[in-house]
Formats: sequence, structure tokens, C-alpha cells
Amino acid sequence: MFSLASLLVLGFVALTNSQYQPTWKSIDSRPLPSWYDDSKVGIFIHWGVFSVPSFGSEWFWEQWQQRKLKPFVDFMDRNYKPNFTYAAFAPSFTCEFYDPEQWADIFNASGARYVVLTSKHHEGYTLWPSKVSWNWNAVDVGPKRDLLGDLANAIRKKTNIRFGVYHSLFEWFHPLYLYDKSNDWKSQLFVKAKTMPELIELVNIYKPEVIWSDGDWEAPDTYWNSRGFLAWLYNKSPVKNTVVVNDRWGSGIACHHGGFFTCQDKYNPGKLQNRKWEDAMTLDKSSWGYRRTANLEDYLSMEELVSTLAETVSCGGNILINVGPTHDGRIIPIFEERLRNLGKWLSVNGEAVYESRPWTYQNDTVTPNIWYTKGGKNAVVPSVYVFVLNWPKNNQLYLGAPVLNSNSKISMLGVKDILDFKKDATGGIMIYFPQLTPDVLPCQWAWVLKMQGVVNYQ
Amino acid sequence: MFSLASLLVLGFVALTNSQYQPTWKSIDSRPLPSWYDDSKVGIFIHWGVFSVPSFGSEWFWEQWQQRKLKPFVDFMDRNYKPNFTYAAFAPSFTCEFYDPEQWADIFNASGARYVVLTSKHHEGYTLWPSKVSWNWNAVDVGPKRDLLGDLANAIRKKTNIRFGVYHSLFEWFHPLYLYDKSNDWKSQLFVKAKTMPELIELVNIYKPEVIWSDGDWEAPDTYWNSRGFLAWLYNKSPVKNTVVVNDRWGSGIACHHGGFFTCQDKYNPGKLQNRKWEDAMTLDKSSWGYRRTANLEDYLSMEELVSTLAETVSCGGNILINVGPTHDGRIIPIFEERLRNLGKWLSVNGEAVYESRPWTYQNDTVTPNIWYTKGGKNAVVPSVYVFVLNWPKNNQLYLGAPVLNSNSKISMLGVKDILDFKKDATGGIMIYFPQLTPDVLPCQWAWVLKMQGVVNYQ
Amino acid sequence: MFSLASLLVLGFVALTNSQYQPTWKSIDSRPLPSWYDDSKVGIFIHWGVFSVPSFGSEWFWEQWQQRKLKPFVDFMDRNYKPNFTYAAFAPSFTCEFYDPEQWADIFNASGARYVVLTSKHHEGYTLWPSKVSWNWNAVDVGPKRDLLGDLANAIRKKTNIRFGVYHSLFEWFHPLYLYDKSNDWKSQLFVKAKTMPELIELVNIYKPEVIWSDGDWEAPDTYWNSRGFLAWLYNKSPVKNTVVVNDRWGSGIACHHGGFFTCQDKYNPGKLQNRKWEDAMTLDKSSWGYRRTANLEDYLSMEELVSTLAETVSCGGNILINVGPTHDGRIIPIFEERLRNLGKWLSVNGEAVYESRPWTYQNDTVTPNIWYTKGGKNAVVPSVYVFVLNWPKNNQLYLGAPVLNSNSKISMLGVKDILDFKKDATGGIMIYFPQLTPDVLPCQWAWVLKMQGVVNYQ
Amino acid sequence: MFSLASLLVLGFVALTNSQYQPTWKSIDSRPLPSWYDDSKVGIFIHWGVFSVPSFGSEWFWEQWQQRKLKPFVDFMDRNYKPNFTYAAFAPSFTCEFYDPEQWADIFNASGARYVVLTSKHHEGYTLWPSKVSWNWNAVDVGPKRDLLGDLANAIRKKTNIRFGVYHSLFEWFHPLYLYDKSNDWKSQLFVKAKTMPELIELVNIYKPEVIWSDGDWEAPDTYWNSRGFLAWLYNKSPVKNTVVVNDRWGSGIACHHGGFFTCQDKYNPGKLQNRKWEDAMTLDKSSWGYRRTANLEDYLSMEELVSTLAETVSCGGNILINVGPTHDGRIIPIFEERLRNLGKWLSVNGEAVYESRPWTYQNDTVTPNIWYTKGGKNAVVPSVYVFVLNWPKNNQLYLGAPVLNSNSKISMLGVKDILDFKKDATGGIMIYFPQLTPDVLPCQWAWVLKMQGVVNYQ
Repeated sequence: MFSLASLLVLGFVALTNSQYQPTWKSIDSRPLPSWYDDSKVGIFIHWGVFSVPSFGSEWFWEQWQQRKLKPFVDFMDRNYKPNFTYAAFAPSFTCEFYDPEQWADIFNASGARYVVLTSKHHEGYTLWPSKVSWNWNAVDVGPKRDLLGDLANAIRKKTNIRFGVYHSLFEWFHPLYLYDKSNDWKSQLFVKAKTMPELIELVNIYKPEVIWSDGDWEAPDTYWNSRGFLAWLYNKSPVKNTVVVNDRWGSGIACHHGGFFTCQDKYNPGKLQNRKWEDAMTLDKSSWGYRRTANLEDYLSMEELVSTLAETVSCGGNILINVGPTHDGRIIPIFEERLRNLGKWLSVNGEAVYESRPWTYQNDTVTPNIWYTKGGKNAVVPSVYVFVLNWPKNNQLYLGAPVLNSNSKISMLGVKDILDFKKDATGGIMIYFPQLTPDVLPCQWAWVLKMQGVVNYQ
Repeated sequence: MFSLASLLVLGFVALTNSQYQPTWKSIDSRPLPSWYDDSKVGIFIHWGVFSVPSFGSEWFWEQWQQRKLKPFVDFMDRNYKPNFTYAAFAPSFTCEFYDPEQWADIFNASGARYVVLTSKHHEGYTLWPSKVSWNWNAVDVGPKRDLLGDLANAIRKKTNIRFGVYHSLFEWFHPLYLYDKSNDWKSQLFVKAKTMPELIELVNIYKPEVIWSDGDWEAPDTYWNSRGFLAWLYNKSPVKNTVVVNDRWGSGIACHHGGFFTCQDKYNPGKLQNRKWEDAMTLDKSSWGYRRTANLEDYLSMEELVSTLAETVSCGGNILINVGPTHDGRIIPIFEERLRNLGKWLSVNGEAVYESRPWTYQNDTVTPNIWYTKGGKNAVVPSVYVFVLNWPKNNQLYLGAPVLNSNSKISMLGVKDILDFKKDATGGIMIYFPQLTPDVLPCQWAWVLKMQGVVNYQ
Repeated sequence: MFSLASLLVLGFVALTNSQYQPTWKSIDSRPLPSWYDDSKVGIFIHWGVFSVPSFGSEWFWEQWQQRKLKPFVDFMDRNYKPNFTYAAFAPSFTCEFYDPEQWADIFNASGARYVVLTSKHHEGYTLWPSKVSWNWNAVDVGPKRDLLGDLANAIRKKTNIRFGVYHSLFEWFHPLYLYDKSNDWKSQLFVKAKTMPELIELVNIYKPEVIWSDGDWEAPDTYWNSRGFLAWLYNKSPVKNTVVVNDRWGSGIACHHGGFFTCQDKYNPGKLQNRKWEDAMTLDKSSWGYRRTANLEDYLSMEELVSTLAETVSCGGNILINVGPTHDGRIIPIFEERLRNLGKWLSVNGEAVYESRPWTYQNDTVTPNIWYTKGGKNAVVPSVYVFVLNWPKNNQLYLGAPVLNSNSKISMLGVKDILDFKKDATGGIMIYFPQLTPDVLPCQWAWVLKMQGVVNYQ
Repeated sequence: MFSLASLLVLGFVALTNSQYQPTWKSIDSRPLPSWYDDSKVGIFIHWGVFSVPSFGSEWFWEQWQQRKLKPFVDFMDRNYKPNFTYAAFAPSFTCEFYDPEQWADIFNASGARYVVLTSKHHEGYTLWPSKVSWNWNAVDVGPKRDLLGDLANAIRKKTNIRFGVYHSLFEWFHPLYLYDKSNDWKSQLFVKAKTMPELIELVNIYKPEVIWSDGDWEAPDTYWNSRGFLAWLYNKSPVKNTVVVNDRWGSGIACHHGGFFTCQDKYNPGKLQNRKWEDAMTLDKSSWGYRRTANLEDYLSMEELVSTLAETVSCGGNILINVGPTHDGRIIPIFEERLRNLGKWLSVNGEAVYESRPWTYQNDTVTPNIWYTKGGKNAVVPSVYVFVLNWPKNNQLYLGAPVLNSNSKISMLGVKDILDFKKDATGGIMIYFPQLTPDVLPCQWAWVLKMQGVVNYQ
């Protein structure tokens, strides 16, 4: 067993004789393990006590009791007895239908290559039996089960998906956090008593390959001891070789330091970035946690999902698609439908996604709603992939970016025949789409062309 | 206010000087009000205390405590305290998100023309404040609301949909019913104390235009006083002119007497019937009530739904599509998606459905998965409609049933152009489908051809 | 098994060839079974769903939702969610500590000779599984147990105490009752569907020897069919030889007809009555049902209890002492203490109580707080008993009522020695009490003198 | 506001330039503030989440889940759903009837001069909103109220009673405690993160004048930092002048060091002690926390209570009488009765109790069940008090201890007359009790003689 006592000071000391120093310069110098960029598609899971009211969003507690927003106050007034406290929701976090192998099956069918679970959101409730979150974790109150450990095991047993954790540094209402805050971050009671021990527990016990940090923005990274933790993670931890982290490690750090960049929520810059980044986004447009009142129109359509994926991957990002399970442990059918449909789409078009790299052009110079990638390091034949979001009018698609010659070859993923094309005077090309009726269409949304022999391939 | 006292004996006396007598001969002679056959598509709603466990099916109580099926016994043992009784579920039937106008909007968008709500299922709990179901109705325990009245009002205010009720004659565990049963139906305590007063309350207060009777099978219609009730309904009730009823009015009666025939659940005979019938079926293949554990594969796909609709209408049936709302009053997104998709399909193809009539042929004599209707009484030009469930290979569809000549005209609903066809030696015709790419397809599932100038139209 | 069908009309027909006719004259003519007058002391038990809120009184529902009294409305507003209904209390009527043998032991230790349990109070919830109170009885919701039957069995097995039932004719909120009421009692739906079947069930199944009717006051006895029921009870029922009933059988009947008289609650006329009567009174001065907020001062002291008993028995009454068990099935210690103390007192002084009869004088003609009885039919030596509520000043008690002579003998129950007395000029006597220090006192409250050789004994 | 940050190290540093050093020698040298010995009678209150099941005892959690005792396991199996955890009891700790001013009134009426409330029992739940017990305190979950602060305020506002707190050092299941334990107390994570901050919070915010420490026995005082804390408490705290503490500050410490001695629970040595001690005892013989199943025989009788008090005070002890309030905030009537009865007894006999001191003899040399005290420092006339637990046979009491002469005077507290006595040959005296009948008895249990002019008074 690891030494909890040592944890409390770990990271507060410099790590000598190690590869990585607790400086951003050193931390930023670590190459991102390649599995992450190759994966492209991940699943995000927001689950916690907020899944009990499952009203409004996963920020329920804060919206109800801090900002006191009317819909939340009204919801509580109408449906709960006076003096009901947030902690009293926890016994109803029952998870009786939680079947992690079934979840693993759905995630696997979606084509995702990694999964990130909220080990602890801003409410502070831990989905694993943390020693530093007594009586406020999933074994002590609610499901009486190590929800996190069981998912990690199921995913590793059933799939090749990698397992990662989301972790919130801050907690809205933790008294030690509020104490440190009132102290202008000169004290670190909360970090020593909670954040650091939690992170070390998580890494040592569950060996996550993604650490998706959040809740960092109010305090500087020096308060959070982020660099100390990351240096330990990269030098000494059991996942030092494969773990990836994001960039939310203190105010002013996001989009500047760390591992991959997430910048703000649902970050989708629309153009190529210098650094590996991720678009963490949601299938329920308005919430990360499960919302009972979400109607059909609140869910992303397949067109919107595939479009976002294409744009993200073209610009060098990964997409992290969020679902919110219910308080009783289910992934509702509309989520399952979207994920399985995505998997069907990827089973045809995955070649243009997984291990792909951004091309010189991200979108076309002439025609809108066209996104490009190119084949990755392992591609046998250099190819450029064209994501065509809408079927072209009269079956003719004009592209301005790729330079082709007579040896070039265009096909559509999932379709056998070679496509005709014609180069025009400006160097652009007109591509003639096959007239595919419903019975022979390779997929329902966004068709991908594969071009070989692209002159300006690079 | 109506006289409850008189209700208790009503129907037990002969109705003299009235059009309809309490005999099957007389009752069966009443013409079915035409709105019903014209409507074709209805929505069925199973909602009640069983929506609280929402496990297994709406037969939960019976499966748990009568048949003692293992999954049900286990579910209770694992998730509830010992001595938990079914009645103790009722306070959790909260319906806090129940928005009947939103339901009306979804049903309207689905293209349905009537709605049938379980006013009371075999559990006996009434969704309206029945005087004969004290402390076991939606106003006395649970939502504290007239769920049925509120839906009737919303539907009538917001849509042109007709409102109907499902009503179970028997109740699994009602002691008076069990007493009568132990008496070989020689006593009628239950009928006098419950069934008759309930039905009369329902009709007088809510004026439903469908009465969908159920739970009749154990006892003869003489026990149920069905003929007495129907005679009253047809002669004297406030809905005597427009109400339609089904055929479940006593053992041996279903499929033989009453209004439209439902025969057994999910009745779908696959060929033309002499009498108007209805296929009451479910979107969740395994349950009428909401089931939390239903996965995506448990829900009917759009292909299956449209296929069932086509087959049903071709053979002279109506389709009654069931959804199960949740204990908190929601129609979950997967149901909403199916219903809205159906509405989109009907907005293109409704011409072949509403007011249509069965043609000479229901399905094609040569090609499978082809179903026919013909235009109804109000059709300007006589037309035969062809439901093509699968897009034809090579865009060529061969039909053996319709006899066409050179003046005949074939089009596809939702598509402007006229389709070419060629008659072969045997009189069959080969129809050349347009090569519709995804951007110009009129719909996603099942395409409908309209034929004018059909020689064997009749 | 008895015929429920026949119950519904039973009592509505005249009983021919029977001893008792359904007229008050005939019913009143039946002699009261002697066990009742001999018993003197009974226990009353108010238990039901009202024991769940256990706030205010057993009239909680009516005070909250009909009269809307502020303390009740506030209690609900502060401690329950909106839309909480009374029926939703029932699942919390758990009775997990209910031990009817322990109750029997306490009642036996109290010296009581009969017990009367609320089989059903005005709320309508039955403590036995009545066929006409489905889902609103103790087996269907709450403890899942025949509370009444289990008490009847325990009492009969463990003690010689007789078992009786309280039964409320009316129910505050029953729709059929309210219907009949709105009909000026011209319809009898409620009586036929509920009251009569309940009473017949109770008598046939549990064979109670007391039927303590209540809730009669709004409607005439003709509505209640009281005379019909009583004629059946006296002629045909399994308890026809030993059953006693009270007088609450319709408006204007109490204090005029029936069995023993109870007149109003806590009836204690203070003088001899022509007819056998009963003082039904409570240990919690303000409530019959258990009240959680009752403080010590709300409970009757032993002095008050013994004083009331003495007064009651002197004037020819029985005392029916009420306790309210808790929702979890306990008789709280303060009740147990009062009852066991009463038993200790009766173990010394019971001779003056059980089987006693009123004397010529009830209280003394000169000294206040003195009550008399005389020995009953089985007394070997004619005796007059003097209940001295307060120890006499200077140990000298002057009495004006009894005429003694030199052969007369006075003793104190529980004390061996004979007491001196002296007759004065007016015929009154001065009695000299022994100087009993705490170690030799026979009891703590109210001492009883026994006089033999009383000249005016009669 | 006090500095929480500094708390975490406070007491771990030596306090220089202070009166008391963190050594037992120095701590033991502090004189006990005199109010404590003068008070003699205190009230102990055990209240917490264990008051919700209120079954077995306040050790419920440990008995159920650690020792797995059958009655506890059975109780949970029968009455709760599987997977119910102890933390899930907390929302039901509602305290809706908690009226601290009413409690203060009862305690005051009992004659108690100090009150000790369980600020936190071994379960870890704090009755005040501790910063180091987030979501496991009375404001965050349960009553949503500072139970401790409200009692402190009410007692100080309404009475002259002093307010104190019980505090458990260890917590059965706290992971940091278990961690330190597994470390053979070489780490102090738990003490730094919980115990010390809690104690300092309690002292600084609520200024208790008793700190009744418990739960110390598994670990040495060096682990608990007890001496550091006590040195701070005596030197620097806001209650440094008046606070008293007990002796449970580490294994081997109880009965050896600290403030007053409690040694083991219900300590009652029966003879004079060298050091001030306290008998912490219970009115419910079998539990400190409220037990719903406690019957009358489980409660101490007044005879037993007064007898224990007499013995305790005679031998130099204080008595701390425990009551267990209910989960909804009530002190049940049987407790109230005992306390008010004690108050009545003390209102007569308090002169022999408050400010008294042990006499040379504690009990009599000849007659059993006789206990002595003598007048305290403020007594005008030197007196010896004799507690006579049982009224003497034939009203004659023989005493061997006091030496009287002809000037000596004996009276009974509450009685005016002087008592006769006679000296015998051996120097013993025979005292002639007045023949007090119930109307003139000064009290019901244990009578106290006051002797003036006692030759061997000292």
C-alpha cells in the first residue's frame, strides 16, 4: 500500500535527479504519448450526486444555493421538503442498473478509443472510496460501490479503450477551500488535505491514462501544486509512460501549459493549432450531467455530431463526447443511439479519422463545409481525406485545395468505384459523385473521399 | 352533477324505447363512426403506479407478487426494504415534469389523430379522482393531480386529436373481484362497486371518444354487464354519436363483438379483415409501461415502425402506437424521436394513409414487402398507393398486382417527376425508380408510389 | 367463509323469528352482559395512520386539510414536500417494534379487564385487511400485518382480558360518504359499500366482545342501519351472548339508546346514572392518538388517574383509559409507567373496584373528595368502600354518609389493623387513620377504607 | 476569526513563557476550578445520527458493521433496503421538535448545574458546522441547524447552568484514523486533520466550560497531542480560567492524569477518592443514546437515581446524568419525569448536595444504605448530612459514625421539628424519626438528616 502520510507532502518538495522538473518549461517539454493523438475520439462521462436531481445541469448545487437561480430554487421548493440539503441527495444515488460491462460495450461500439469519467466533480463527491472524502463517496453513501474502479476494470477487460479520469481541483463549498480562498491562497489546507491525496490515490490505485483536470481557475498553479504533481506523475507514477493530461492546472495556465489543450469548454477553434488540443463537448447541448427535462431538440443530431468531429479532427483536435448517466446507472437510449450510430459511421470512415494528421489545408479554399485530413504515420499510400458534410448539388463537388494530376485517384470510403474528376483552368477540380440511392449509400451522414496521388500532399 | 346512486344500477335495467338494445346483435349493428377508420394512426399511453418501479413491464405487481417471477422478486429484494408493498410505490408517482401541452405537441407532430390513455390499468389505480377508487387515484396519492383530465384538456385545446381512454375491467388483486371470481361470477359486487361507476364517471366527465376496454377475459360479458353499458353508451351518453369502442367485453367476445376488433395484443393479421380492426403495438418491444432497463435494441427502429404501419393500413387496420411515460411525467427522447420521425414521414406520405381504404390487393402478387392502399372517399382522382419498404435493387421495381395502361401515371410521393414503367408479357410492370441521392430523397424509410389510371382499381 | 355478497344487504331486511327486533325498544331491552359492569377498567387504544405524523391529535387529517388549522398547515409546510397527501403517510406506518404479547402484558399488569382497539378511525384506514378497504389497510400498505388480529390473539392467549373494537361509522373524506351526505342521507352507498361489510367482517372474523361505535353524529340511525346491525349482532352473530356495545349509533341516539352510554367524550357525570355508562378518557390530556410533542405536564398524574377512576366507579361507570401507540408500534414508557402503577394500586384496592356496585351515596355528604362503592353480588360480607383521595389532615377523617354502630368495623385495604372511629352527635363519624410512614403505606395515591356493618348499607 | 491554518500545527509546538507546560506534571498541577466540585449534578446528552435508528445503543454503527452483532444486522435486514449505509441515516436526523429553551427549562428544573452535550461521538458527525467535518455535520445534512450552538445559547440565556461538550477523539471508521492506527500511531494525519482543529473550533467558538474527552483508549496521549492541547487550553484559550476537563486523553491516562477522573463509564467507586471524580451514568440502564425499545424497567427508578446520587456525592464525586434525545429533537416524558422529580428532591435536599464536601465517613459504620456529606466552605454552621435511603423500621435509625453530645441537634431537611435521639453505650446513636404520613412527607425518596454539633466533624 502506498504511504498516505508521504502523499500529504509529496510534490511540495523538489524532485531531484529526475527527468522532469516542476517547472512549466520542463513539463511542457514532455512529448505527448502518441496513443492520444492517434485516438481522436473519446467518451466523457459526467456522473455524480448531481445525477440525482438531474435538473438543469451538473452545476445544480451551485446554481441552487450560491447563485440562487430561480428555476433551481423553484424546483427545490416544489419537489422537496424545506431544509433539504444537497448532501441528502446522496442516498438516492442508487445506481441499481449500473452495468459497467454494458457501458464498455456501448463505448466500444461508438468507436471511441478512450473514456474519461468524472472521478469527482465540483461537488466533491468521489466515485471511488477516497480516504480523504469520508462519507462523501460512492462506497460510503449512495450505491455502496466503487463506481470508478468497476468501470476501469470493465473497460480494460472488455475493450482496448484507455481509461482516464476527470478530477476537479476546487470544490464549490468545501470549507477548507473557502478558507484558503479567504486567505488569498496563502494557506494550502485544502490542497494538502484533499486535492493532492486524491490525485495520488487515483493514479496509484486506478492507473488512469488521462488526467483531465478542471476547477483550477480561481487560484494560481502554485496554490494547486500542479507542477509538483505533474513532475511526480511524469517521473515516478505507475502511468509515467502513457499518461496524458490536459491544461487546467491553475489560473492563466489553460491554453498555455500542460499536456493537450482544452482551453475553454467546447473549445473548437476551427483552424489548425500549434499544440494538440481537444474539443470536450456534449450530446445534450445544455448540460454535461444528465438532465431529465432535456427534449429531443436538446440533443445533438447525427449531422451535427459528425460535422463537429470532422472539423475537430481536421484542425488537429481530439473530440471528447460527453454523456450523462442517470442516478440509477443507465445510459439512456438516445445517447446509446447517437453513440452506436457514430460507431457505424466510423466503421466506414475511420480510416480518415484514427491516426490521421491535419493536412496543409483544413477546409477547402472554395467550397464550404469541406474538411481535410491526411493519412497518418502508418499509412501505406499517402492519402488526403475529404469530409463532405452535405451531399453535393447535382452530384458535383468542386474543390480548390488539392492539386491533382492524371495519376491521382479519388474514391469514396465504403464505395468500390473510382470517382471521375476534371481539373479546371484555375487548378481546382470538379468531382463527379456516384448517384447513390439509399440501398447503396455507405453511410447516412457526411461522406468521405479519399485522394491518392495528391500533388501538394507534403 | 350526475347521480352516482343511479349509476350503481344503471345498465342492469333494460333500456326501453332506445335505438340500441343490450344484445350483441343490436350493438354490433351500430356503424362505426367514420372518423375512426379515417384516422389510421393513434397513440397509446400506458402510465400508472407501475411507472414507478418501471421495471419489467406494467404487469410488475402481478409478476412480482402473484407469479413471483425471479427477476421481479430479486429486483424488490435488492432495492427495497422487506415488507415494501405495491401501494407504497404510489407516493413516488410524482409526475413533477408532466406537461400535457408538451405531450399534445409531440403527439400532434407524430401525425396521430387519436390518443388513448390508460385511465386505469389492472393495478386499479385511477389517473382521475374516481369516487370509487378512494386513496388509490392520482389526486389522493402521488401527483395530487387529475392526470387524465389535464391531458384531455391539453389535447383538445392544442390539437385536433381525439381523446380516448383505456380501462381495465378486472383488477388483479381487488378483493371484491376475487370474491366474485371465487363465486364463479354469480355475484357482481365488483362490477357494481367499481367497474360500472368508473366507466360512467369517465364518460360523463371526460367525454372520451374511444373506450378501449381490457382485462375482460376471465369472466363472461354477462358478469361485466358489458351490453348494458354499451347500450347506455350508444343511446344516452354524451358521446353517443362519436364514441368508438373495441371488442374486449368478456370472455369469448374479443374478435367477435363490439366496435373495432383488437383480438389479441399486437394483433396484426397480415391480410384484409371483414371488420375494422386495430393493431395496438409498442415502441418498446417488450413492455407497454416504461421500462428503465430497455436498451436501444429494445426499441422499434423506424424501418420496423413504418413497415408495421404500412402492413396494418393495407389490411384495413388502424395502428395504435404505445409509449410509456416515466414516473416523473416525461416522454423520453427516444420515444419523441420515433414519433417526430413518424410525423415527418407522414407529412410526405400521409396521402396514402389517412382516409385511405384497402385495395383489392394488400400486398403484391410477385414482389415481397410491397403493400397497397387506395384513395379514400374524398379522393379527387382514384389512386392506388404502393408502399415500397426497401429501395429496389438497381432502381427497378416489378409489380404483379396493378394493371396499368398507357394512360396510367406513376409518381413517388414527395417527388415531382413522373416515373417510367414498362409492362411485360404477363401483365406485370417494371417501374424505374429515380436515382435519388440523399439530398433529394423525400423520406428516409419506405417510399410510396401513387398510381393513377389503374385499370383494376375498382 | 361468510358470504360477503349477503353482507351488503344484511341488516336491511327484517329479522323474523328472532329474539331482538330492529327497534330501539327491543334493542334497549337486552340486558347488558354482566362481565362488562364487573370489569370496571378497560384500555382504549388509538392507533392508525395518524400515528405517523403523531402531531396535534388523531384528527390530524381533518385539522390539516378541512379546517386548515394553522399549526397543522405549518407543520406540513415545514416538514414535508409540497403536494404531500395524507395517504402518503401510510407507508411510514411501519410498526416494526409492535409486540402484541408485550402489549398484552402491560395491559394485564394495569389491572384492566377489557381492551378496545380502533379497528378504523375517521381516516378510514383499517387495522385489519378489510375486503372493503383495499390498499387502505394495514396489510396492503404500511406494516403489512393484521395488527388487529395479532392483538386479539395475543390478548386471548396471554391474559383473561376481553377484546373489543372501536369502529368509526363515518369517514371524513370518503367520497361515497360525502355523496350520501350531499344527498341528505337519502342514498346509502357508503353504508352498503363500507360500514356494514366492515362491521360484519369484524364480528365474524375477530369476535370482539365490545363494539365501540363512533362517528355517528352527522346522520340518523336509519341511514346507518344501526338497528338492523344490532339486531343481527344480538340474534345471530358469534358473539351474541357476550358482546356489549355503546350508544353512538346515529344523531340523537347517544345517551339515549344502545348498550352502555358514553354520551360525549370523557363523559364523567359526577353522579349516579340510571344506565350503565363509561368514561372514555385519555392519559395524554390533549389527544387520543400519540402526540410526539406531549410534555410531561400533558400526561395525567397518578393522582388524577386514580381520582377519576374512583369518581367514575362510584357513580356506576366504567373507565376506559386511552393510550396512543407510536407509528413503530410502541407504548411509550410514560404510558407503561402509568398503567403499571395503576395495576399496583388495583392489586391493593381492586376489591373496592371490580364487581363493586354504586352505594346509596356516591360522595360524602360532608367531606369532599370522598367516593363510595359497595361490594358486588359475590361479596361475602356486605361492605362499603370509601375512596379517600387525599390523606386526611391530622389523620382524622370525618364522614357524614355512613351510619355505623358499635359492631361496625373499619379497615384500610392493604393494612392489617382495625381503625378507631367515633360517632358524633349528628350521626357522623370521625375515623382515626394509622400514622403510616412511607415504609408501611399500602399505596401511594388514594387510600381505600372498607366498612363492614354499615347500618344504612341496603 | 481564528486562524484555522495555525490550528493544524498548534499544540505541536512547545508553549514557552506560559504557566502550564505540556507535561502531565504541569497539567495535573492546575487546581480544578471550584464551580465544578460545587455543582455536583450535571446532565449528559448523547445525541447524533445514532438517534435515527435509535436501536440498541449509540454504538449502533460499530455493532452493526464492525462486530456484526446479530440483533443489529437483523434490525437492518428487516427494516432497511440492502446497501443502506450509515451515512444514509443522516437526512432523517431531522430535529423538527428541537426546542433548546425547553431543554434548558427541563435541565434547570432538574437541579443540574452543568450540561455536557456530545459535540461529536465516535461516528464522527459533528453537531456544529465544523470546517473539518464537511457534509457530515448538523448544518450540512440532517437538521440544517447548529444544534450545539443553539443549546449553548439557550442554556446561557435562560439559566445559570454551565455549558460543556463531550468530544470523541477517535472515530470508528475514519480512514485517516485507521491509517494512523495501521501505522502504529507513527503518523498523525487524523489528529492534524480532524481532532485538533475540531477541539480548537469548539473552544474558540462555543467557549465550553467542560471538555469531556472520550475515545482515547487505543492510542497514546503523544499521538493525540493531548498535553499540547491542554497546555493551550489552560494558558491561552478563552475559557482558561473556568474550564474543566476529564481524564480520557490517551491510553493509560484515564484515572491518572488530566482534570477530574471518570476512569471507566458509570464509575462509582463507593469510597472516597483522592482526586475529584465524576460518575457519568444513564437513566436508560442500557444505552446512552435514545433507544426506542427501552421499556419502563430499563429506566432507572427514582429510588435508584437518588441512591446513586447520594453515594456519589458522599464519596467526593459529581454525578452526570445522561439522557438521549430523539431524532426529532425531543426529551421523552419518562426522562423529563425523572429529571423534574430529581429537581423536586433537590429543592428540599440540595443543602446536603451542592457545595457539600465528603465527611470523614462516607457511609455509616453500622447501618447500611446511609451516606454522609458535610457542609461546604460557605456553610454558616458546620453540619453533617445523613442520606437515609430507606425509611427506618419502626422509625428508629441507629448510626455508628457521628459522635454527638447534648448540644447536638438533628433535623430532617424539609421538616420543621427537631428529632429526638439517644446515645448508647458504644457511642452510637438511635434517632427517632417523626411519623410522617404522606401529606407531610418532605419528599418521596431518600430523606436527609442534618446534624449540627457533631463532635467528630473536623
